[in-house]
Amino acid sequence: MSKRIPVVEKITKANDEVAAMNLNRLNDNGIFSMNIMASPGAGKTSLIEMTLPMLAPKFRLGVIEGDLATDLDAARAAAAGAVSVQITTGSCHMDAPMVKQGLDELPLDELDIIIVENVGNLICPAGWDLGTHRRVLIASVPEGDDKPFKYPGMYRGVDVLVINKIDLLPYVTFDLERFTQGVEALNEGVVTLPLSCTTGEGLDAWVDWVTEQTAEQRS
Amino acid sequence: MSKRIPVVEKITKANDEVAAMNLNRLNDNGIFSMNIMASPGAGKTSLIEMTLPMLAPKFRLGVIEGDLATDLDAARAAAAGAVSVQITTGSCHMDAPMVKQGLDELPLDELDIIIVENVGNLICPAGWDLGTHRRVLIASVPEGDDKPFKYPGMYRGVDVLVINKIDLLPYVTFDLERFTQGVEALNEGVVTLPLSCTTGEGLDAWVDWVTEQTAEQRS
Repeated sequence: MSKRIPVVEKITKANDEVAAMNLNRLNDNGIFSMNIMASPGAGKTSLIEMTLPMLAPKFRLGVIEGDLATDLDAARAAAAGAVSVQITTGSCHMDAPMVKQGLDELPLDELDIIIVENVGNLICPAGWDLGTHRRVLIASVPEGDDKPFKYPGMYRGVDVLVINKIDLLPYVTFDLERFTQGVEALNEGVVTLPLSCTTGEGLDAWVDWVTEQTAEQRS
Repeated sequence: MSKRIPVVEKITKANDEVAAMNLNRLNDNGIFSMNIMASPGAGKTSLIEMTLPMLAPKFRLGVIEGDLATDLDAARAAAAGAVSVQITTGSCHMDAPMVKQGLDELPLDELDIIIVENVGNLICPAGWDLGTHRRVLIASVPEGDDKPFKYPGMYRGVDVLVINKIDLLPYVTFDLERFTQGVEALNEGVVTLPLSCTTGEGLDAWVDWVTEQTAEQRS
């Protein structure tokens, strides 16, 4: 196994170099960008789909969809009004070269925000910088309140935590206090936004957060 | 990147050799074994926790818990009456050497069934043979009905599919027909067991399946 380490280091270093180039390119074009990560089925595509029409009156939107297979998500993003690019990863996470490929295909001078939807996975994506401005994690109520304790790498490294599917709180066992304690222990003071993509509750606060971050980035 | 391939092949081959040894060792001891895989929060630990007391009157049970971090799951399995070993993987999947380590620590001549709980991940565990007799996938209703289309590698490679959290069907959008079509396209005729670890509905059929598989393996 000793042979693995230099190879992995080399790949990570190459990734970080491309990530830095992606960030420069986004900044040069005055674009705010987010890397959205979550478990399979936590609601990445649903959140993007609900958010695009709310952001569209103020911003020009692009989406880079990372999918292990299929283009279901890109179709949903395009239907919601964004310029959308599909990257079929064939692997367990997105890396910076995949985002570069997405940026190559998008009309950067016509966009204000780019949302990157990562592959559904609570482990591997945490290790790969894509060059975006913010990392967003979507937790989901039916996943259970123990997830911060079990996937610390992911919870530790994000800038904002969306708690989706709060409409299911009455039907599942989810101790918000226990969950919040776990989150705070790993990532003190992280912004937490509870919402439901089904009922729409809490979406305004999320859209406000994206709007503020975009204004700050572009100022 | 070209350097990666021989290294990865070498690791996979070494894994498969250990997996074959694990299987021989289980067979020599007359033990039936399962590798349980799922997304984070789909209910692997809950299913094991509900099942152990139902199987305990007939079988002597061991659990190998693969966790990225913490020993929460091993504690839950031990509380439910099984001999339990915790493997802290530190990575995105279990491999055969980790299961070997678990087997080394368990009293094999005193067990009839060993359940391996894999790391919560719908991608990486699919590529690693552990040497168990059956691969079990737990899908969960709130994850959504598009998961077979998006994680085909995992759905293609399993022997039985548990659909957990059916008690949430009235509260979420989940088209069972669409889901089943996706599953059938990838894995024709796979045994499908809908159940709820919350209400207990469907657990008898799951316990019957485990009992049959164990009898078959040991005959």
